[in-house]
Amino acid sequence: MVDLKHVPGDMDTESFRRYGHELVEWIADYLSHSERYPVLSRVQPGEVRDALPKRAPEHGEDFDLILADFERVILPGITHWNHPGFLGYFAITGSSPGVLAEFLTAALNAQGMLWRTSPAVTELEEVALAWLRQLLGLPASFEGVIYDTASTSSLHALATARHAAVPDVRQRGLAGRPDVPPLRVYCSDHAHSSIDKAVMALGLGHAGLRKISADEAYRMRADALQQAIAEDRAAGLRPIAVVATVGTTSTTSVDPVPAIADICAAEQLWLHVDAAYAGVAAMLPDRRDTLAGCDRADSLVVNPHKWLFTPFDLSAFYCRRMDTLREAFSLTPEYLKTSEAGAVRNLMDTGVQLGRRFRALKLWMILRYFGAEGIRERLATHMQLAGTFAHWVDESRDFERLAPVPFSVVCFRFHPRDRPLSEQDLEALNSRLLDAVNRTGEVFLSHTKLDGRFSLRLAIGHIRTTERHVARAWELLQQHAERIGGQA
Amino acid sequence: MVDLKHVPGDMDTESFRRYGHELVEWIADYLSHSERYPVLSRVQPGEVRDALPKRAPEHGEDFDLILADFERVILPGITHWNHPGFLGYFAITGSSPGVLAEFLTAALNAQGMLWRTSPAVTELEEVALAWLRQLLGLPASFEGVIYDTASTSSLHALATARHAAVPDVRQRGLAGRPDVPPLRVYCSDHAHSSIDKAVMALGLGHAGLRKISADEAYRMRADALQQAIAEDRAAGLRPIAVVATVGTTSTTSVDPVPAIADICAAEQLWLHVDAAYAGVAAMLPDRRDTLAGCDRADSLVVNPHKWLFTPFDLSAFYCRRMDTLREAFSLTPEYLKTSEAGAVRNLMDTGVQLGRRFRALKLWMILRYFGAEGIRERLATHMQLAGTFAHWVDESRDFERLAPVPFSVVCFRFHPRDRPLSEQDLEALNSRLLDAVNRTGEVFLSHTKLDGRFSLRLAIGHIRTTERHVARAWELLQQHAERIGGQA
Repeated sequence: MVDLKHVPGDMDTESFRRYGHELVEWIADYLSHSERYPVLSRVQPGEVRDALPKRAPEHGEDFDLILADFERVILPGITHWNHPGFLGYFAITGSSPGVLAEFLTAALNAQGMLWRTSPAVTELEEVALAWLRQLLGLPASFEGVIYDTASTSSLHALATARHAAVPDVRQRGLAGRPDVPPLRVYCSDHAHSSIDKAVMALGLGHAGLRKISADEAYRMRADALQQAIAEDRAAGLRPIAVVATVGTTSTTSVDPVPAIADICAAEQLWLHVDAAYAGVAAMLPDRRDTLAGCDRADSLVVNPHKWLFTPFDLSAFYCRRMDTLREAFSLTPEYLKTSEAGAVRNLMDTGVQLGRRFRALKLWMILRYFGAEGIRERLATHMQLAGTFAHWVDESRDFERLAPVPFSVVCFRFHPRDRPLSEQDLEALNSRLLDAVNRTGEVFLSHTKLDGRFSLRLAIGHIRTTERHVARAWELLQQHAERIGGQA
Repeated sequence: MVDLKHVPGDMDTESFRRYGHELVEWIADYLSHSERYPVLSRVQPGEVRDALPKRAPEHGEDFDLILADFERVILPGITHWNHPGFLGYFAITGSSPGVLAEFLTAALNAQGMLWRTSPAVTELEEVALAWLRQLLGLPASFEGVIYDTASTSSLHALATARHAAVPDVRQRGLAGRPDVPPLRVYCSDHAHSSIDKAVMALGLGHAGLRKISADEAYRMRADALQQAIAEDRAAGLRPIAVVATVGTTSTTSVDPVPAIADICAAEQLWLHVDAAYAGVAAMLPDRRDTLAGCDRADSLVVNPHKWLFTPFDLSAFYCRRMDTLREAFSLTPEYLKTSEAGAVRNLMDTGVQLGRRFRALKLWMILRYFGAEGIRERLATHMQLAGTFAHWVDESRDFERLAPVPFSVVCFRFHPRDRPLSEQDLEALNSRLLDAVNRTGEVFLSHTKLDGRFSLRLAIGHIRTTERHVARAWELLQQHAERIGGQA
């Protein structure tokens, strides 16, 4: 039996103060000097795991000791996404106001499943998403909800499309039903893998996703889409949705949403737009066209945790038919019934996950701290830096650009002009170059393949990235290319 | 054009320091004096929303101002889950070491989709989940992965069960297939609503979930399960999985997992155990039986963000057939290929979501800071407090207990003995009592229905809850019952 007069409780307040202040100093130093760390972690597989005990300690340990181990064991195993030299995948940022907001979110530990379980969680989400929607130039007919990732957003989009096409799918499912033919979803062959995972999860099958070919600039071909739909209908399949991408993962190409929206309207298909990375560019007056046609989409996802300086995770999902989404998912067991129901929105009704973190706080604080103007300025800077880098590539004798640069990502490769090299040789060469540059620890780039050609990818999206970092990446690429090219 | 020599960047370091230290003081004060706030928010629907501007500011604002609005507008709209008087739903805790860990997680902003995108994210997850697994007494044959919520964990469990039963479901889906009959999943009628949502999302249909009746202590009846499976097979349906619950949401009852495991073995069905709340009780030597039979489950979920002092969100999913889960979901587009593949685990292979926060850090810090002994002591305290409260109810003339108390949740109601009252009268009476007690702001309780009887629920799970809070809840219940009872 425990002595109830001496309940052990939490860490004492003075200790929390002491460690909290210590962490503020540590994080301030980290954010301003992250360049002292190699961007890409240098640990070997198993190194972090093997440096830690096999069992949890029986007795509690001092927090000092835990922080010391964090620095000694964990930190070397971190690839520094919050480093201005991180130029891989989609570069993201945990900006200072966002980090401070996350600290508050953790302290409140509020859970937004129901309006009453924290009205501010539900209502600040509504406010922050309305602000973001206006900045993006989307109409008020879009209702928003925050999910963790774009994978979850797109899963819900396609689940709702499925519900719109087969209204009793919620009750009867898809199996053993002669009345439901195979369903079809369309996306370009440059769409994100989360679309593949969504159709697999939803029981549509990977074969239920038809990839439409892209044009020379990696944009979905609307004519090919139209033809595919006609073929599938003729074959007895039932088309239900099209996913258009604004900012594909490899090259940030933009599918022709207006033409796709025409097709979706004529064919009565759900149009989901994956603008997870590039959607925010529409905040710039001269880039409004980024989301052209998207006002006609049924749903759209934009990820503030990608190019809007918001600590991971926060995916903003907008839907013009949120009631259909709620029809597909809402369900209120007795223990979650509240007297306000009807008068308020309960976030649990908009999806699979019951529990919801207070994610809106960071988005709201970031939008206020930087302001619309400040955000536009930073996005414009990133696009300009990418343009500068693309220019260097274009001017270079031994590098070539492999795709247009609509936003802040450049696809390119080393291609020494004085030697005949097969695609295979070029892949080996560029793969070695990528490894060599990443091994320096000063910058980190990633890669993709475009029409079978191995391509390096430089992505700008970190709030502290400056011309110096991009110039250094270019310098390192040239240096190592010369060395590797000479050896090849 | 932006002047690239003057990139706007992030908040300056000195400001971050200043606001960071301010927040540490604020949070220290909040955690130690959260009782100054009413547990349940008192705002009216729309109040938070209407107190905020309709548009994002054009120009950036001082962080001081944002924090002032946080206190003025947001805080009154928070229901204080991190308050020791929070005794509703499942009471949870954002403990101090967990809050500090979240601060670090946000600053690193690491993303664990691939091993190389932060080896420590993947490997610390492995270590922390192995520690937790051992503490729970589960065998090493369970591999773990961290998801956001139990809803997501159970969705993946049932997706894997579906894949095990219909191996080409990934490719071909469920629709338009004469070879796949309707699939069936079983759970008790006290299982969590996330199971309903999972079958709906997966295309099995709500009708594909058969609810098995419970015994007088709200535990699934194994004989009824056996009979239901036989009936369904005879009707041409295909049973694929059973979800057993260890700690149901209403009463924390425990389904007879050993008997259910026997049935699943004989019938070759996937056994998923939802131990999201109560699983951790198995850490206590005298409560090892909590997870009896669970070593035979195919998958199991335990939520450290429920009763393990971990800030929301962190759901620990264990699976004995994680390779089947990976078969159901893994997919590697070119831009995510890495040279280490094969030698390492890439977390993106274990599910729908590509991106993953560094959630393991908080779990690891919490397990170390409190230690196994410290955690057991706190869990035992909570169960003892619940036992004390249950005893008060049992001794009282005008209250009655409505369910056994296996862990830290008590179901009870006000039932004045001197008057004949219908179930409807009792519901109205208890509903008013609940509102009255919650309106005091000192404590917050929730409710459920048990066999049609409206039941109050007192749940203990916050690390700072002491006998004083539970005694105060009892005092308030008696006071308000007397007042309301007198009026009735």
